[in-house]
Formats: sequence, structure tokens, C-alpha cells
Amino acid sequence: MKYIGAHVSVAGGVSSLRQLVVVHPEKPLKDFMIRDIVSVNTYTDCEKVAQLVARYDFLAVPVVDDDNRLVGIVTVDDVIDIISEEATGDILKMAGVGEDYVETQTILRGTRIRLPWLFTSCLGGLAASFIISGFHDSLSKFAYLAVYIPVITGMGGNIGIQSSTVVVRGIATGRINAKDLWAVVAKEISIGLILGLIYGMLIGFVAKFRYMEEPLSLRFACAVSLAVVTSMSVAALMGSLVPMLFQKVNIDPAVATGPFVTTSVDVVSVFSYLTIATFFLGF
Amino acid sequence: MKYIGAHVSVAGGVSSLRQLVVVHPEKPLKDFMIRDIVSVNTYTDCEKVAQLVARYDFLAVPVVDDDNRLVGIVTVDDVIDIISEEATGDILKMAGVGEDYVETQTILRGTRIRLPWLFTSCLGGLAASFIISGFHDSLSKFAYLAVYIPVITGMGGNIGIQSSTVVVRGIATGRINAKDLWAVVAKEISIGLILGLIYGMLIGFVAKFRYMEEPLSLRFACAVSLAVVTSMSVAALMGSLVPMLFQKVNIDPAVATGPFVTTSVDVVSVFSYLTIATFFLGF
Repeated sequence: MKYIGAHVSVAGGVSSLRQLVVVHPEKPLKDFMIRDIVSVNTYTDCEKVAQLVARYDFLAVPVVDDDNRLVGIVTVDDVIDIISEEATGDILKMAGVGEDYVETQTILRGTRIRLPWLFTSCLGGLAASFIISGFHDSLSKFAYLAVYIPVITGMGGNIGIQSSTVVVRGIATGRINAKDLWAVVAKEISIGLILGLIYGMLIGFVAKFRYMEEPLSLRFACAVSLAVVTSMSVAALMGSLVPMLFQKVNIDPAVATGPFVTTSVDVVSVFSYLTIATFFLGF
Repeated sequence: MKYIGAHVSVAGGVSSLRQLVVVHPEKPLKDFMIRDIVSVNTYTDCEKVAQLVARYDFLAVPVVDDDNRLVGIVTVDDVIDIISEEATGDILKMAGVGEDYVETQTILRGTRIRLPWLFTSCLGGLAASFIISGFHDSLSKFAYLAVYIPVITGMGGNIGIQSSTVVVRGIATGRINAKDLWAVVAKEISIGLILGLIYGMLIGFVAKFRYMEEPLSLRFACAVSLAVVTSMSVAALMGSLVPMLFQKVNIDPAVATGPFVTTSVDVVSVFSYLTIATFFLGF
């Protein structure tokens, strides 16, 4: 008996019906049966089984217990259901709308399922509102500050969703592993930084030409640019780091990532923008 | 020959190997072959084929041309790949990060693929900034107005994502059809309205007790509450209506929905909040 990862070669073997029909009737089974069987254990995670069947194009895979006794099989049509539900489930969980068959939910059930996800988002929004009220003096002196709040939180929030989507799907399809943590995070930060510089310049440029009153104009535009870069880099960092960490501690990254990332990105974006702007404007 | 939707019964039939082995050797094929065959046309959409195989647990489905001649088969392992890629693709497309294998993209390619989606979001954010600058006078008189911008856009944006996720996945899995348009939209608006009332009261309550200066305190709290209700109902409406309309005109709802919905929700939220607040506060 040899063990290679999830593949277990059991004593015994299998033969296809096709082979039984064409082989010489006197030939003993042991001469043509296939002995190297890929099987799964009764405790194997069903998503792992699905990945196995999908990768090797099996029509079925035998399930054995700890003593390598055959206790059942998983067929390819079960696997299709698992893959379809798992992928749909991930999308729905990331948006906090339940696991599956949301279309047939009643209004009340749909409301109840979405409530907790929105509560996280509400707490985050209120935290952002506390931060803004802390900058009340700056806002009173220069109401124009408020103008760029949505574009900065929006750009951060959107790239945060992109990073976390890539990582959550990568984990689900087995293409990203916990050991790649720093490589994945470093790549996302790089993408966030490049996109942050591009959009920071663009939005800063617009800010410069819409608010023309010297001497604040250039300083304000620089503050807006820098805030976009900060918000987008930090969002890419959090969008990738959060699901990787959840995965490490065995919390489903799809459930936890959505509200956690968008909420913390909002808070960080608002705080960094107002801090940078207050500093640049010299209030 | 009879046609039932995508199922075509062709002249001829099939038999399983198992049956060929156990049947009497002299029995003619036509006596035991299965004549009612579900097949697909060469022009059938591959997602439709996948849904068919998944629903009926087929191991393979024959493909026929317009004259019902067998031209090939689609096997279950192809179907697994289609389902897995389709679901992953939908998630990634909704976040604007490409179709698949994003994990193996280079930094530059990852940047280029995310750029256009973020550009839509940037345009929306700048549109929101133009709207806010139109309310410069109100903001100068009452800087506290800015405090609730992120929580209102955030609550709208998040329920918008929830509604569009439910609808995009419902369309992809075939559980929501174009003809259900108004039923789906009505349900989402109801959920948006209920959740809007709940969170509108909660956030308005917080607003009331954080800004205590009479006589504006109560009026301001009411304006915040009403803005949350408006933003969340409109977001649920747009989040469900936009993908249904895209589907009707044959644009992939997963691609178009993400940036379009978050962007328009931001603009509508900011505009309705500042309009309502300016009116309630009597500026």
C-alpha cells in the first residue's frame, strides 16, 4: 500500500466492463486488473474530491475507510453538483446573500440573510463618520474637502473587491495556497500601487483644475493624489491579506472577506485622506 | 422526429455496453436500443449543454447537426470544466479582474485588466464629486453634512452588490429568466426598502445623538434616515434591474453589472442625500 497525497492505492484492483468482455475467458482477473487505484477517504473534504475528479476526468472515485475497505463511490454527477454549488456559494457568500437558491427565498428570509453583512458595513460606515467628525474644523475651514470623499473611498473599495475576489477564487480552485501568502500579497500591493499612481494622478489633475484658488490649489491636488495612492495600495493589501489569513485559521474566506474588507477600506481611506489633506493644507 | 426544447429525438438509437453483453446474441438491435435520445445541436450554447448534463446526470450527450446527423459528443468531464470556468468567470468578471487564471497573470497584465473597470468607478466618483461641489454652500454652513456621506454611499453600494449578485448568479444558473424581470425587481426593491428602513432608523438614531445642537438636530437625523432609505431602495432597484436589462439585450450581465451598479449607486446616493438634507435643514 502506498499513499501519495490524497491518492490511496488499495490492495485489490478494478477492471472496466469493456475489458471483461474482450479478454480471454480463462485469463485470471489479477493478470489484467488495474491495481493503482486513486481513492479518497471517508473524511476527505468534498471540494477536494471534486477537484480530484475534475483534474483527472474520472467518472467515479472509490471511497475507502481508514482500513482501506471500499465503503462507497462518488460519481461524476455528484461532483458536478458540488462544483456548481461551491462556485455559486462562494459568489453569494462574498456578497453576504446566503449560500444557494437565493432566488427562491421569500422577501423576509432574503432580508434576514442580508442583515448581518450590512450590519458590518453599517458599523464601518459609522466608524468612518466618527473619523470625519474628528476633522470637523478642517471641513469647516475648507468645505471643498468633502468633495473627494466618495471617489477616494470608492477607488479603494473597488480595488479591494478585486484583490479579495482574485484571492478567494484562487483559494477555492486550489491555485493559491496558504504558503504563497507573501508572494500573493506582494503582487496585489504592486498592482494596487501602480493603479493608485495612475488614478491618483488623474483624480489629482481634475482636483487641481476644478479648485483654482491659490495658494491652496496645488497643495490640495497633491493631497488628493496621495490619498488615492494610499487608499488603493492599502486596499489591495487588505483585500489579499484578509482572505489569506482567514484561510490559515480555517475560516471560510468567502464568508468573512466581503464585509470585512469593504468596511476596513472605507475607514482607512477616510482617515488617511483627511489626515494627509489637513497636513498638506496646513490646518 | 420530435423536438422538445433543446432535446432532439433523432432517428436511430443507442444501447449501453452492459446491455449488449447480457442480451441474447440473436436479438436485433432495434428491439432493445433506446430511441428517445436527448441530444444537442452544434449551435447550442456550451453553458446550456452543461446545464442539461448537470440536470439529467448524463455521462455524455450526443451533438447533431441541423439534419440530425451525429457529429460528435460532449462528455461529462468537458462539462465539469465548463461549469467550473463559467462560475469562476462570473465572479471574476463581476469584479472586473478578467475571466480566469488571474492568479498566474503578471503584475502588468493584472494591472491592465483591472484598469477599465476602475476607470468606470473613477468616472462615477468624479461625477459624485461634481454633485457634492454643487452643494458647497450647504456644506460651508453645516460641515457636519459631510460626516454621513461614506455610510450612506456604503450602505447603498453594498445592497446594490447583493442584489446584482443574486440576479447575475440566478441568470447564470438558469433559475432567473428574462420574463421574471418585474417579479425579481419588485422583490429586490421590497428587500431594499425593509433593510433601508431598519438601517435608516439605526443610522438616523446615531446621527440624532451625536449632533445635539437644536433646532437642527432632529431635522438632520430625519434627513440622514430618509437618505439611507432612498439610497438602499434605489440601489436594490438598480442592482437587480441593470443585469436583467443587460441580459435582455444580450450583454453578459456579469461583465457589465459590477462597475455600472456601484458607480451609479454612488452618484444617486450622494445626490439624494444632499438634496434631502438641504431641504430638511432649510438652506
